[in-house]
Amino acid sequence: MGIDPGVANTGFGVVRVAGGQMTAIDGGVIEVPPGDPPEARLARIHSELEQLIGWHEPAAVALEDVYFGKNVRSALAVGQARGVAMLAAANHDVPCFDYTPQAVKMAVCGSGAADKAQVQHMVGALLRLPKPPRSDHAADALAVAICHAGHMRAPAASVQPPKTAEVSFG
Amino acid sequence: MGIDPGVANTGFGVVRVAGGQMTAIDGGVIEVPPGDPPEARLARIHSELEQLIGWHEPAAVALEDVYFGKNVRSALAVGQARGVAMLAAANHDVPCFDYTPQAVKMAVCGSGAADKAQVQHMVGALLRLPKPPRSDHAADALAVAICHAGHMRAPAASVQPPKTAEVSFG
Repeated sequence: MGIDPGVANTGFGVVRVAGGQMTAIDGGVIEVPPGDPPEARLARIHSELEQLIGWHEPAAVALEDVYFGKNVRSALAVGQARGVAMLAAANHDVPCFDYTPQAVKMAVCGSGAADKAQVQHMVGALLRLPKPPRSDHAADALAVAICHAGHMRAPAASVQPPKTAEVSFG
Repeated sequence: MGIDPGVANTGFGVVRVAGGQMTAIDGGVIEVPPGDPPEARLARIHSELEQLIGWHEPAAVALEDVYFGKNVRSALAVGQARGVAMLAAANHDVPCFDYTPQAVKMAVCGSGAADKAQVQHMVGALLRLPKPPRSDHAADALAVAICHAGHMRAPAASVQPPKTAEVSFG
């Protein structure tokens, strides 16, 4: 399960690897009302992720190790969302893994310098989705899940797209 | 209740304001084993704070709005600890408040440029502790609690030390 934690929108994506094929199981975005106080938004993110992790029982949670250049305030806010995401994983005894944005792009697009649109496109292609994920947060979460799945079994370059997609994505 | 969230050590401090006097109720440090994975450490911080907040039922949780200059990686890690602290507050319907380090130092020492030793000393003096808190994390947590208490009832300059301390602090 990949998670792309954010202050307003947290993307998630679940992929299954079986028989050398990768299948999309679930994906979407947790949106929290912008008017709520930060602690209420974190509680909402945590509660939704708790339910998703409890439902899917993933073998691992993968997160992007995000840097924001000079913006320490953003890093603090994203760190808060990451914290409650990691806590949801820990509460289900699911280990967390971090990947740099470069590693994720390399795994999905074959280039560490790929842009958001390329990631979105390639996530759709690798998972044989009818269309790329509409939300780039869901796409980013699926991308980091693909990256982790690739690292678990073989070099990322050998990831094979599955024959069919099971669901479509928001 | 003031909380000073950190990756290795999270300080906490509880003060009560009644009859124009401020009394120290509790204070200390949650230490997490450095060898544990980050998500396990966050789970430990969260669980300890959940218990403390459930026990003390504070009217508010106050946190320092920490900046780290250029160190985005530190901000992300501290943000994670802040996130699980804020979640513990939200789970008990306790609102969170942020104060800048300058506001905290001004409330406790009368100067926004006070150093750690001054804060530690003045926290001990304002709360009439037999000695200043041994841990600077506990001192910082008590300082932000004092800052919030001062902001809630009057300008910080009017905070009066209580006659006696109820407990001593680690």
